[in-house]
Amino acid sequence: MNRKALHKISYGLYVISSKKGEQFNGQIANAVFQTTSEPPTVAICINKQNLTHEFIQESKVFSVSILSKETPMKFIGNFGFKSGRDFNKFDGINYKIGLTGTPIVLENTIGYIECEVMNSLEIGTHTIFVCEVIDAEIISDDEPMTYKYYQDIKGRKSPKTAPTYIAEDIQKEVGKMQKYKCSVCGYVYDPEYGDPDSGIKPNTPFEELPDTWVCPICGAEKSKFEKMV
Amino acid sequence: MNRKALHKISYGLYVISSKKGEQFNGQIANAVFQTTSEPPTVAICINKQNLTHEFIQESKVFSVSILSKETPMKFIGNFGFKSGRDFNKFDGINYKIGLTGTPIVLENTIGYIECEVMNSLEIGTHTIFVCEVIDAEIISDDEPMTYKYYQDIKGRKSPKTAPTYIAEDIQKEVGKMQKYKCSVCGYVYDPEYGDPDSGIKPNTPFEELPDTWVCPICGAEKSKFEKMV
Repeated sequence: MNRKALHKISYGLYVISSKKGEQFNGQIANAVFQTTSEPPTVAICINKQNLTHEFIQESKVFSVSILSKETPMKFIGNFGFKSGRDFNKFDGINYKIGLTGTPIVLENTIGYIECEVMNSLEIGTHTIFVCEVIDAEIISDDEPMTYKYYQDIKGRKSPKTAPTYIAEDIQKEVGKMQKYKCSVCGYVYDPEYGDPDSGIKPNTPFEELPDTWVCPICGAEKSKFEKMV
Repeated sequence: MNRKALHKISYGLYVISSKKGEQFNGQIANAVFQTTSEPPTVAICINKQNLTHEFIQESKVFSVSILSKETPMKFIGNFGFKSGRDFNKFDGINYKIGLTGTPIVLENTIGYIECEVMNSLEIGTHTIFVCEVIDAEIISDDEPMTYKYYQDIKGRKSPKTAPTYIAEDIQKEVGKMQKYKCSVCGYVYDPEYGDPDSGIKPNTPFEELPDTWVCPICGAEKSKFEKMV
């Protein structure tokens, strides 16, 4: 069996938001599909360990914000690599409250779907929630972010056909520069790519990053980074 | 509510195949996602009216063939617009029998996942089947077909950014040519696009199609086409 075949399944990239009492939380997810068209229903799959899972089980409502292709890594990092148990992910984020009372993230969002849980199915580490669509709106005509695009471009591995692809000989030379890993979230700073979202150009060695530079994913300081072997 | 927001969810395009006794059937689907990684499981969503649904319920096994971006419309039409109740969709198709005994379509397939049903959940007109992955293989490095690509390019509606987009003034002129609809499957022959899969160039009026030409989706003869109003 080659499990990598599973990586050929296509997905979008979404922020799933929910609430528990007065608390809000949201997380990045890719497992979303429509299940019926009359009435409109969707299914999502969420890890049981996530705080958003706890909130959805409690309130039975959530929203799916469909992310734009232009969504910066920092935004994805805020919802994807941090835990809502440690801080309020909605601080400084543009959102609104939906018809069901659930928060709906509007930033970097091309459209959203507001849902009420009808049924759920446990599968080991995860739960599938099947939901009625209560509201849905399109916000912009931008392209949706796909999981593949996120991995290839945002995850900074470029396919040969991509404009960002760097030919092998250049890669080898640049490859000599040392990579550093964030000890908090695991993000790898690769000098070859720099950190364009933070204004750091490709081919900038880690040592030359300003002291004010922080991990684009989790916000950890430069000192939290470790040399990779 | 704007239901079109649901169309912003990203999908791939797949052939789901199953068996019942000695009979095989398969259908096009887009609702597939991975649910857990340990053990590897996936969920699919299938319309209860489909013969493949009946086969999966009976045999509890099926395969997911992940289609290549280059898959021709005719192939998609064979599995997507016809019913296995009328004929054997596997006639002339390259496939193999998997570990579970289910057929696995190999044609236009970049990878496949073979599954055994663990659980299911009914949602009105559809059923979600949750399944253990029994086998999975990658067949080629080609890009997967996405549902968006299928709609935009293969469905022959071109976005402005696509190479196939025809500027409005040309569209207007060409638009004067009469469209014809297949009375069997509903496929629309649009002279603007021709039928490249069958060697018919764009801007070929329906009247000039050879008599040997058949519907690229269901194979119906030219005489089965009706003028659209």
